[in-house]
Amino acid sequence: MPYEFKLTRRVEFAETDMAGIVHFSNFFRMMEATEHAFFRSLGFSIHAHEAGKTVGWPRVSASCDYRKPLRFEEEVEIHLLVAEVRSRSLRYLFIFRNVDGVEVARGRMAAVCATVDKSTGQLVPLAIPESLRQQITAAPAELLA
Amino acid sequence: MPYEFKLTRRVEFAETDMAGIVHFSNFFRMMEATEHAFFRSLGFSIHAHEAGKTVGWPRVSASCDYRKPLRFEEEVEIHLLVAEVRSRSLRYLFIFRNVDGVEVARGRMAAVCATVDKSTGQLVPLAIPESLRQQITAAPAELLA
Amino acid sequence: MPYEFKLTRRVEFAETDMAGIVHFSNFFRMMEATEHAFFRSLGFSIHAHEAGKTVGWPRVSASCDYRKPLRFEEEVEIHLLVAEVRSRSLRYLFIFRNVDGVEVARGRMAAVCATVDKSTGQLVPLAIPESLRQQITAAPAELLA
Amino acid sequence: MPYEFKLTRRVEFAETDMAGIVHFSNFFRMMEATEHAFFRSLGFSIHAHEAGKTVGWPRVSASCDYRKPLRFEEEVEIHLLVAEVRSRSLRYLFIFRNVDGVEVARGRMAAVCATVDKSTGQLVPLAIPESLRQQITAAPAELLA
Repeated sequence: MPYEFKLTRRVEFAETDMAGIVHFSNFFRMMEATEHAFFRSLGFSIHAHEAGKTVGWPRVSASCDYRKPLRFEEEVEIHLLVAEVRSRSLRYLFIFRNVDGVEVARGRMAAVCATVDKSTGQLVPLAIPESLRQQITAAPAELLA
Repeated sequence: MPYEFKLTRRVEFAETDMAGIVHFSNFFRMMEATEHAFFRSLGFSIHAHEAGKTVGWPRVSASCDYRKPLRFEEEVEIHLLVAEVRSRSLRYLFIFRNVDGVEVARGRMAAVCATVDKSTGQLVPLAIPESLRQQITAAPAELLA
Repeated sequence: MPYEFKLTRRVEFAETDMAGIVHFSNFFRMMEATEHAFFRSLGFSIHAHEAGKTVGWPRVSASCDYRKPLRFEEEVEIHLLVAEVRSRSLRYLFIFRNVDGVEVARGRMAAVCATVDKSTGQLVPLAIPESLRQQITAAPAELLA
Repeated sequence: MPYEFKLTRRVEFAETDMAGIVHFSNFFRMMEATEHAFFRSLGFSIHAHEAGKTVGWPRVSASCDYRKPLRFEEEVEIHLLVAEVRSRSLRYLFIFRNVDGVEVARGRMAAVCATVDKSTGQLVPLAIPESLRQQITAAPAELLA
């Protein structure tokens, strides 16, 4: 399964807001947690120290469409699909489903492989490490529609 | 100024992550804080109790493009522009600029006026209150390009 | 095991700060997540609707002593011990251990069983439900030292 | 005013939880934001790069007693008082008051001046910089009672 990954989480109290539902910003944190678990499943870390520099994956863009609210203690499955593999960046699609299999949200994220210079904060894009690239491919188009 | 609003914030430590920059999810919280300050500036609250029901503005969609990182203690100006006024929803554009006036990020958000039924969690869309609608208009197209 | 519960979590990126470690406020969120999982393990929810009112467990006090930093992707075991069962409140001790079994932090929390009046925000303390009380007891003194 | 500082904030939506009030962990973030503003008022940053190393103020302990809930859009004044100046650490008292001047919470925090070794995560305590120490003194005992 080199193009997808699934993570199941239970909504925590601190993720809710006074409207009684998961705060919309937390869907982005769930996307990121799924991306990182995907990397771990391949034997990689999203934040690695290699040859004296820190290699990370800063975000280029992120978006989410909200269909149904998620509530405290609900289980949510986050389905990551690799949407595109570029030379220096990856694009993902995320589909959030509740315990009944109903889609509650759908997100997209693009991240670029880069070295973060901590003193200047400048990002220097890098080619995706070959060992990682060999394990990742884009999902079939029909899954990304 | 019925179609724009500006909020200035200073980046807090808890908004940063181990990459040394503002975590990407926090740009969505900054958008929301600006939206709410905009509402307050018009004499409204984003979360009101009216005639026995709670009227809120759940998010339909949100997105952000990241151009430059923001760091601890940097001042950031968040420029809200009303992009579209529909019968039951509002669309916004947000431009984030650092203290040098450089654009660091650009976001979009759509929110629908709705009653949140706290027991079922169901959202029932409502027409935007007339008193609010009269104060809001879409920004000129050239500002939204 | 009516007086203790253990939860294992992996540190997420969004829980870190620019110092490269878990932000100190997030230890309180981990305590709460453990408390809630403890309640679920007993068949209860920390936030229940009973007889037309919402029964929750607002915090009276919380504290934490930090011994060692926790970093991204580290596994942490949070060991909850019931420190005291009062008529309307519970007191907990939490011991955080890293994957080597080393104690990295130790926290305490007191929570009162209460109805939250959402319109006024006033909390009205309640006796702990008998069905819950019968399942919880304080841990032996030597474990709480 | 070398022993106290006041910060006023308005509660944001993302700081609330489904109980309709500020999540208890966010009082710790408010304490920290006040501590950092206090440092800025003295011309210092809580996170500085000096002579090739990063000097920070990791937390040794933190606690909070909750008296009344805080709600969305409420203004809260956070009153920082320096409780103790040690050779390598500072202790603070924080009093949270709502717009009516009523105390809603009271917190304490101890932070140690240290270099954080980012690769090992080890903290090496340092003497408080003399230029900072000369500007800070403990508050009178009667204010700390």
